[in-house]
Amino acid sequence: MAKKTAASPVESYHSQHSPFGAFSSFTLGLINSSGGFGHALRGPARQNVYIGFRESEGSRWRLLPFFKPTEWNESAFTGEAATARPPADFDPLTSDETKRTLGWASDSWSAAKGRFGFSILSPFGEMPDPNKMGIEDSRKHLSPHVNAWIEYDNTKGKKDAELVFGVGDPDRLFRPLEDTEKRLQGFAVNTEFGFATTPDEAIETRQGFDILNPRFRDYRGLLVIGGESGLIFRVKAGEKRRFPLVLGFYRDGVVSTGVSARYAYTRCFKNLEDVMLHGLAHHAYYEGLSVLRDRELEESGLSLDQQFLIAQSTHSYFGSSQLLWGKDGAIYVVNEGEYRMMNTFDLSVDQMFFEIRFFPWAVKNILEQFVNRYSYKDRIKVSSGRLSKGGISFTHDMGVMHAFTPKGRSSYECENLTGCFSHMTMEQLLNWVLTAGTYGLRTGDTEWLESRRDVIEACAESMMNRDHPKASKRNGILKFDSARCGAEGAEITTYDSLDVSLGQARNNLYLAVKTLGAWILLEKVFEKLGMADASRNAAASADRLAKTVSGYFDPKAGMFPAVFEGGNRSRIIPAVEGFAYPVYLGMTDICDRNGRFKELMDKLSRHMCKIFKPGVCLDAKTGAWKISSTSTNTWFSKIALSQFVVRKLFPEALNPKALAADRVHADWQRQPPCGSQAMCDQIRSDTGVPCGSRYYPRCVTTVLWMDE
Amino acid sequence: MAKKTAASPVESYHSQHSPFGAFSSFTLGLINSSGGFGHALRGPARQNVYIGFRESEGSRWRLLPFFKPTEWNESAFTGEAATARPPADFDPLTSDETKRTLGWASDSWSAAKGRFGFSILSPFGEMPDPNKMGIEDSRKHLSPHVNAWIEYDNTKGKKDAELVFGVGDPDRLFRPLEDTEKRLQGFAVNTEFGFATTPDEAIETRQGFDILNPRFRDYRGLLVIGGESGLIFRVKAGEKRRFPLVLGFYRDGVVSTGVSARYAYTRCFKNLEDVMLHGLAHHAYYEGLSVLRDRELEESGLSLDQQFLIAQSTHSYFGSSQLLWGKDGAIYVVNEGEYRMMNTFDLSVDQMFFEIRFFPWAVKNILEQFVNRYSYKDRIKVSSGRLSKGGISFTHDMGVMHAFTPKGRSSYECENLTGCFSHMTMEQLLNWVLTAGTYGLRTGDTEWLESRRDVIEACAESMMNRDHPKASKRNGILKFDSARCGAEGAEITTYDSLDVSLGQARNNLYLAVKTLGAWILLEKVFEKLGMADASRNAAASADRLAKTVSGYFDPKAGMFPAVFEGGNRSRIIPAVEGFAYPVYLGMTDICDRNGRFKELMDKLSRHMCKIFKPGVCLDAKTGAWKISSTSTNTWFSKIALSQFVVRKLFPEALNPKALAADRVHADWQRQPPCGSQAMCDQIRSDTGVPCGSRYYPRCVTTVLWMDE
Repeated sequence: MAKKTAASPVESYHSQHSPFGAFSSFTLGLINSSGGFGHALRGPARQNVYIGFRESEGSRWRLLPFFKPTEWNESAFTGEAATARPPADFDPLTSDETKRTLGWASDSWSAAKGRFGFSILSPFGEMPDPNKMGIEDSRKHLSPHVNAWIEYDNTKGKKDAELVFGVGDPDRLFRPLEDTEKRLQGFAVNTEFGFATTPDEAIETRQGFDILNPRFRDYRGLLVIGGESGLIFRVKAGEKRRFPLVLGFYRDGVVSTGVSARYAYTRCFKNLEDVMLHGLAHHAYYEGLSVLRDRELEESGLSLDQQFLIAQSTHSYFGSSQLLWGKDGAIYVVNEGEYRMMNTFDLSVDQMFFEIRFFPWAVKNILEQFVNRYSYKDRIKVSSGRLSKGGISFTHDMGVMHAFTPKGRSSYECENLTGCFSHMTMEQLLNWVLTAGTYGLRTGDTEWLESRRDVIEACAESMMNRDHPKASKRNGILKFDSARCGAEGAEITTYDSLDVSLGQARNNLYLAVKTLGAWILLEKVFEKLGMADASRNAAASADRLAKTVSGYFDPKAGMFPAVFEGGNRSRIIPAVEGFAYPVYLGMTDICDRNGRFKELMDKLSRHMCKIFKPGVCLDAKTGAWKISSTSTNTWFSKIALSQFVVRKLFPEALNPKALAADRVHADWQRQPPCGSQAMCDQIRSDTGVPCGSRYYPRCVTTVLWMDE
Repeated sequence: MAKKTAASPVESYHSQHSPFGAFSSFTLGLINSSGGFGHALRGPARQNVYIGFRESEGSRWRLLPFFKPTEWNESAFTGEAATARPPADFDPLTSDETKRTLGWASDSWSAAKGRFGFSILSPFGEMPDPNKMGIEDSRKHLSPHVNAWIEYDNTKGKKDAELVFGVGDPDRLFRPLEDTEKRLQGFAVNTEFGFATTPDEAIETRQGFDILNPRFRDYRGLLVIGGESGLIFRVKAGEKRRFPLVLGFYRDGVVSTGVSARYAYTRCFKNLEDVMLHGLAHHAYYEGLSVLRDRELEESGLSLDQQFLIAQSTHSYFGSSQLLWGKDGAIYVVNEGEYRMMNTFDLSVDQMFFEIRFFPWAVKNILEQFVNRYSYKDRIKVSSGRLSKGGISFTHDMGVMHAFTPKGRSSYECENLTGCFSHMTMEQLLNWVLTAGTYGLRTGDTEWLESRRDVIEACAESMMNRDHPKASKRNGILKFDSARCGAEGAEITTYDSLDVSLGQARNNLYLAVKTLGAWILLEKVFEKLGMADASRNAAASADRLAKTVSGYFDPKAGMFPAVFEGGNRSRIIPAVEGFAYPVYLGMTDICDRNGRFKELMDKLSRHMCKIFKPGVCLDAKTGAWKISSTSTNTWFSKIALSQFVVRKLFPEALNPKALAADRVHADWQRQPPCGSQAMCDQIRSDTGVPCGSRYYPRCVTTVLWMDE
């Protein structure tokens, strides 16, 4: 794998630093840009963040470039009586002087030849079901904070050095935390977020219009109405010191409508101060967990580009995660990045690989929410005007921005459309089957599968009906649209914003192979549940479907068409996506290239070998993977998922150009077009500019690489 | 008084539409600008507001210009599959076609020759003490909503007409209220704010990327992830219909720190839906109250310019008002406009005239807060390095942006300064005396004066000490600065951002006459309390001070200097401000031009007659009142207060140029430099551009004009 070389462009990207389940981020990293604390935002906050050092009281401050030129707020108060604006006596640290390292659970900067260091830790690990946690475990796992530290090595210094960590919000003011909690030295905005350290003689609190040059000081040296607030840490000559920091979030009260719920952490933390005291008291524990995760990624054997992509994806996943508490207990939600739709199912199915690794209960929780509130039964449009029984399916999502939609309805799906915003009935039906099957089979939670036996059976029946109501006419492929689409509408897939190659659900190669994956899982699930007939039927469906798909191979082109109609000649990478599940579950029989699905796999191999060419599914200009040959809109989360399948099942397709794309994908995320919005998913393959799905959680499909 | 003429420039200004005590506004009115719902903001929100009509389904929409060109959010979802942006098929209503009328408690627009009408009502009236209200009264007086209506007269129409009221937030999404409350038709953002009407067959809910042209519709015709949301009202041919609207706010949970408190309205309303149902159910009551207030202003005999200034000031006052509830009951706070300092005392003393008229308990509540938490005892700097006993005084404010500062400390006052951000010890001492005296004497609440007898006595003693610790050396004028100022600091006055003419506290004409006002009130208060000796002492202090001030008259110039030292030659209007209190209290003996203060009043008359000249205290370019001849920073709240005194006591000073300034002051507020931030206080006298104190509550000093 390619190693990062000096020729790479300067890195400049935001990362989200987020506790689990708080839908909150401290966003930082884009050069010459603001960031900071945000809750439930669709992108980075706009706070100035001051992090840096000066070698002595007389020398100039050196600051990481994480702020915009100060909006001078002082004049609003002082009018014409104000004297001149103080000089901005600092020099920003340049990229040449600074080294940034994004770990799986950390983000670190060093400068001044390693004497200066700053790191934000966002540790995560295996987490038990919150419904079964005691108070101590709840506080440990659900605390809405991230840890950080700042340090200076002044062992060779002749004068006392100083460090600064500060934040300024253009619209709101920070308050000194000592006013509400003497054991905290730091600042907060109202009851909502803040930063602090443990009080220490070496630390001074600063607040004013300019924290480097405070002109106005009250009885304790602050100016409470000054927007900028910070901590100044003194490191004596001859000393090396590392100071702990905690960045905390808190949102009290009912936060959601439709389903009325609070944040789960409010059950075990009484307010922001409680959270911050906890974060500081257990700094060592959280730091240890962070180090453990960082090391796990470093020792994965993956390339630095791959490691970066996993780390950046994970940071953004946690920023969208939200653990609520309703009348029946825990409600897990992943918000859809900039769109903030709740538990969008076509994201859930991709994110489950990450969730199963660390908190599999979250997957079950989402599946249960889909069954209990967001399932429905539909009819399907079998011929002009005539309807037939469809069966169970699930909504696209559960609402948006804290507003749960009514039972059985999403915030997204509209009527009488054939593109974006249409229904995804078949897609979401498959997503429930694949998520339930993968969860049950991977974790061994057969008890839960047993409890949902009726739903699983209903899903199989619904899949059959959508193939064809008459058994004799079934070939495995989706042929009919849900009546929910309306008279003029047709179902779409998760690839809603691409061209027809991936967008249309009927006769769709991607969806057909995904359906195959679902039947394969159903075959195993029914077997586990002792339902031999159902298992045999599922197996037969799988075989029939594999045969049908194989029959659509175009031997002349040596590739599959993306859609089995209208002479479609688009070529798509997600032709193999449906195999992700059996591969992930280690079904060696299914994945045997000379086994039951030999014919289909041979043809998929030929397809994949042929499409990884510039101008087909490699972008001619950038070399990036294009999920469809006929669209420049490519989705990194899906690239990562397909890479997992291709490397495991079809490694012969990976020519040097296809392999070199990791660097391209990583560089996209390290540069401002994507990097200004942390992890981005939908990207123009020819420019690297995102065209949607910014600040996005879905790219944790990269966690699959850890299993390779 | 001048009537508004056709020559006036086009009006374009925001007004705040705010319930009592919710620190919330629906801001609207600036042409080609957004506004909308905001809580605790330092300026207008940034929501698009769609208000208008179309004569029939086929004709073009006509909208009031209260939005920015749409930020097209659709493409973030649809990527390249999206078809073209729909045409923006509306025409904005121009100023020529639209008539806007700002009433004391309403804001109305009409167009289409009166066929179209829209009005927002923000009724207010006399309100009992919340600590003594029952639940029904609490709901009536404290409901955090404003009412509105929209109408169309289609009696002569041949086709059905349509009306629209809609709002779009660029950062957050509205949710359909029917999902949580079937009796409401409208939309809300989370649990925080929203708009609704009573469900009606003639009304359609709309939500999407473009509410005029919704391309995407779900099962009920909405697109929940579309940012723009609205109501479409159908008015049949031959009908005239007026639809009620309610605009509601709600903020749950503890909102303040330092003193932990919730909004008072949360005690009688369980959520936003409860508020909105209440607002609609009692629409007639609130509309009646609004009409009553409007009529009161219309029938005041004041000019249209003056009426406008009173109405606009009042709208902004309510936007900053906040009624909290702590462990001891009601906590009344007025936030300081864009600065959001809490109960800034030099605003409280000016705002009390408004509060006494409608909710005098608020004045007592603030006075009690100052005694209980924000009083202190200081020492004064009598000669280089030597300190002497000062006495009681009060802080400049109680904190900022929901964070109450520690006991005895403000968010503003700093050490070792001689200008802005220094201490205002004498100013705030006088403010407590003047507020307490005015409240007690005007309302007749002698019981309360009695209960605070010790504080009142301590204030008198503190005033004496600041004149001189030795009785023999007293002449009434402040001579020493509080030790709180620090070794290098000196006290300032509320006119903190002006030049020395009004900023310095010692030997200051404005503060001296204000001190006179305080002694005059103390004389009466002590008399009421049966403290004859103290009353006599206060009277003697008043007489002594009046004599001293008179002695500083410059007979050659025919005016007073603003500061009695350093050869100062600034001329100031607030020389007479201290007389506002005896005038307001109807102390005819005190205000007798041939009475006890004849000499001083004669000289003040000569002063005032001389300063109302272009280049002195009338701006040479604009004709506006300049509170200081040597500063172009002029404050409208203080102009209004001085106008009250001048018209009552020194009408001979009001030459035609001085009288013509009402138009200038009103036009400033009606034009975008001020109007973009609703009511503004600190304004450049030569340009009409605000230089601070925007979105500001203090200008309700205009209510004094209602007493003339």
